[in-house]
Amino acid sequence: MATSDRSITRRGLIGGGSAATVGLLLEHPDVSQAAKRRRPRPPRRRQADVLVVGAGAAGMAAAHAVAKAGRSVIVIEARERVGGRVENHDLSGGEIVEVGGTFVGPTQDRMYALLREVGLGTWPTYDEGQTNLLLEGKTTRVSNTDQSTYVGALGLVGGLEVLNVFPQIDQMAREVPVGAPWTAGRAQEWDGKTVETFKNEHFQSAESRSLFDAFLRILHGAGPNEVSLLFLLSYVAAAGNETTPGTLNSLIGTTGGAQQDRIVGGSQRLFVEIARSLGSRNVVLSSPARRISQDGSHVTVTTDRASFVGKQVVVAVPPALCQRIEYEPLLPAVRDQLTQRFPMGSYAKVEVFYPQPFWRDEGLNGQVVGEGVIGCSWDSSPPDGRPGVMACFIGGDRHRAWNRQNLPTRRKLIVDELVRYFGPRAAKPIDYFEKRWTGAEMWSRGGPTGFAAPGVLTGFGEQLQTPFGRIKWASTESSDYWIGYMEGAVRAGQRAARQVLADL
Amino acid sequence: MATSDRSITRRGLIGGGSAATVGLLLEHPDVSQAAKRRRPRPPRRRQADVLVVGAGAAGMAAAHAVAKAGRSVIVIEARERVGGRVENHDLSGGEIVEVGGTFVGPTQDRMYALLREVGLGTWPTYDEGQTNLLLEGKTTRVSNTDQSTYVGALGLVGGLEVLNVFPQIDQMAREVPVGAPWTAGRAQEWDGKTVETFKNEHFQSAESRSLFDAFLRILHGAGPNEVSLLFLLSYVAAAGNETTPGTLNSLIGTTGGAQQDRIVGGSQRLFVEIARSLGSRNVVLSSPARRISQDGSHVTVTTDRASFVGKQVVVAVPPALCQRIEYEPLLPAVRDQLTQRFPMGSYAKVEVFYPQPFWRDEGLNGQVVGEGVIGCSWDSSPPDGRPGVMACFIGGDRHRAWNRQNLPTRRKLIVDELVRYFGPRAAKPIDYFEKRWTGAEMWSRGGPTGFAAPGVLTGFGEQLQTPFGRIKWASTESSDYWIGYMEGAVRAGQRAARQVLADL
Repeated sequence: MATSDRSITRRGLIGGGSAATVGLLLEHPDVSQAAKRRRPRPPRRRQADVLVVGAGAAGMAAAHAVAKAGRSVIVIEARERVGGRVENHDLSGGEIVEVGGTFVGPTQDRMYALLREVGLGTWPTYDEGQTNLLLEGKTTRVSNTDQSTYVGALGLVGGLEVLNVFPQIDQMAREVPVGAPWTAGRAQEWDGKTVETFKNEHFQSAESRSLFDAFLRILHGAGPNEVSLLFLLSYVAAAGNETTPGTLNSLIGTTGGAQQDRIVGGSQRLFVEIARSLGSRNVVLSSPARRISQDGSHVTVTTDRASFVGKQVVVAVPPALCQRIEYEPLLPAVRDQLTQRFPMGSYAKVEVFYPQPFWRDEGLNGQVVGEGVIGCSWDSSPPDGRPGVMACFIGGDRHRAWNRQNLPTRRKLIVDELVRYFGPRAAKPIDYFEKRWTGAEMWSRGGPTGFAAPGVLTGFGEQLQTPFGRIKWASTESSDYWIGYMEGAVRAGQRAARQVLADL
Repeated sequence: MATSDRSITRRGLIGGGSAATVGLLLEHPDVSQAAKRRRPRPPRRRQADVLVVGAGAAGMAAAHAVAKAGRSVIVIEARERVGGRVENHDLSGGEIVEVGGTFVGPTQDRMYALLREVGLGTWPTYDEGQTNLLLEGKTTRVSNTDQSTYVGALGLVGGLEVLNVFPQIDQMAREVPVGAPWTAGRAQEWDGKTVETFKNEHFQSAESRSLFDAFLRILHGAGPNEVSLLFLLSYVAAAGNETTPGTLNSLIGTTGGAQQDRIVGGSQRLFVEIARSLGSRNVVLSSPARRISQDGSHVTVTTDRASFVGKQVVVAVPPALCQRIEYEPLLPAVRDQLTQRFPMGSYAKVEVFYPQPFWRDEGLNGQVVGEGVIGCSWDSSPPDGRPGVMACFIGGDRHRAWNRQNLPTRRKLIVDELVRYFGPRAAKPIDYFEKRWTGAEMWSRGGPTGFAAPGVLTGFGEQLQTPFGRIKWASTESSDYWIGYMEGAVRAGQRAARQVLADL
């Protein structure tokens, strides 16, 4: 679970705070799972036109669309809160920081539309000054608005490789059909190799290789040796919309990219507002779905305490979590095997708090990209810059090594590295908060998203969106555009809602 | 489930027959799972020194070793039978054929020792005559004892590639430490690429590439694009024992290889005999483990009907199935993520029955290797050759295409292909039996074994055998030698038993 070593939170129940404000309380907060098992009671039974399993971004978008179409809907959620991989962490004074999905940016049209619909604004991520790099043991600085600075920072060979190969990746991505990457002309070739093999073919300089590794760790929570080249290309292709093709820069960029804007009130608030509009009775928390059975007329979702009967269900959890539910009848073979082949990345997000964002005074934007524990960071301070918040992302092999340590060591590793990037003022944070999405909690099993090893998209990918009778699948992994982002989750949820409404 | 289109079985409950003969009946055969959930009753509670989850080869070997050490043991099994991926299918007249793991061969020392211990003999797999190949649309024949025949069958380039590269794979495998492939000197390099990339580097001829693909489909139930080169090399390295290094030929060979011998009474009988020796009360069938909790003194395994308390537990199911159990406390992050990254192959085994093994008259051993639906086949007739049984293995992409068809089409695809290999006498089988290990049943989720995509062994592999407190892991995937075979399962089970006994 989330760990704070000094209380800066307003409420005891970290992460549950926002949900509580809209009345989405635990149904029986004093009864443990084990106690419930020892004293079985007759299960309750409820009905709705549509059931939604999972109250993350995809599930809430699906439920919202179903409700707008005038159909009844019940959302069934394992956690004690809504939001899934999107979670606010409360700071004193009413400010929040996000410990999961945070940003929105250009071409993420559905997110901006939903935000407008519920009346939430956005404001630009701090992006003035230089970005720090740590590659091959050396710290250097580059400008986000002048790519030629990479030549100075990475050396001539490495800099030119980045300037040449990144656009080449964009070109290859344009050959990958969004939503159906397995139909690309070169799908078999690209799904036959790892991103590591591609890296070996295209990057010779130690610096450019190190930079590429750092990006991969943060994009997928995995090393280039784990990820299919076709999956990376499909991810790049998806970083756009119906009129603007995706690019690597849209994925990793701040201004003009996926990290451009932040959401007033924090990203989780969007989904809390949707939950409020559905009514707290229709968002059932702390209720893991154990079993989904369907027949000629209905589908039933069974939890430890109740059963829910609907005409259709949207299962809005990542493929890796889908397989922890029992299905009757069994899933089709290829769908079941897909869920065995879409692991969650190795991932954590750490927020380090300072009295103010001192790096701004020194001409730094707070962003780092590097080979150390911290793969990337962003300045995540509230609008007024009080406190200064450094959000650090830790992924892949770096996450596994860091995550094995105890809390004091984990904290020291992060703070020491921030000192290396930002000088001695980074040595004295006023607070430290970490969200370990991998291993420390049950309902994500990793982050930021599921990814595909070679052979998976071409062999099993068509099952990402293919309904199984009354079951329609959602989750950002099954989106067309913006796979892995909140936008992708919303798109997947809205698509699943359309599938459900068409079959009602 | 298993499907027979003409009744040649002696008992109504296919696959449960052998278990029933030793009294391992369903505890409440008349009560369906659903009915049980509607009418909860107070769970029963039982105790033993050691609990074993999974009555497959690994679990039974573990339980046997624990019992021999004088400790009490209870085996908890989801299916209504013992054996796991090892299952006998009864023929009329008391003969059986195996629809899962079947063969034993040189260096599989623990299997031969266990067979001797329970008094079961072996007899040689039929291996006289030529093997059929189907590559690039052409059927040709080779001799198992004269590799130079591959030059004639595959053409000069393809034949020489096979004769050169297969020994090269053996050489590389010798650099891979058995039981710890992630410590190999070139582990990062080999785990960074797919077997497909290796194939592209080493095989130019269409015929040798096609042959290599066929072997991979049957070895792992996967294409070379899905599998890490390091995993393949570790699999080859494991195909031996402490004194004899593994080779590709030991994996795929008949006489002198892993398919050399068959077990009198069928392979499942070994594990049924072990179950008998444990006592039917100590092998609890039809009881999926739902939850495993441990504290400072005990471990508890909870099923739908009962709870079992022990000092130690061996979880003897494949990694992909381990993740469908709930753990309290949660698994370590890297172990949980390993279980997300060890998918089961795509696999089925089909037995086609003829009045006699007519192919023997024509100088054929009944073995095929080819690019069609059937990846490999073996003559699996009973010792007296009545009936003639052709055992066909279907894996990877071929399995996925075949498995989508209905039963008459699946049967036609197989029989038509056998006609292509063996002529018109193959057109009139007297029976047809298929075991679809992937998708058609809950408790394997694929076959023949779990495999590792690139990046998995180096990033997560050390968790295959690492205990988590009172939980020790077994299953053939976690063995040192003979990963993926019954021998590997027995070795893993015996190793887990040693770990458990040391901690009692």
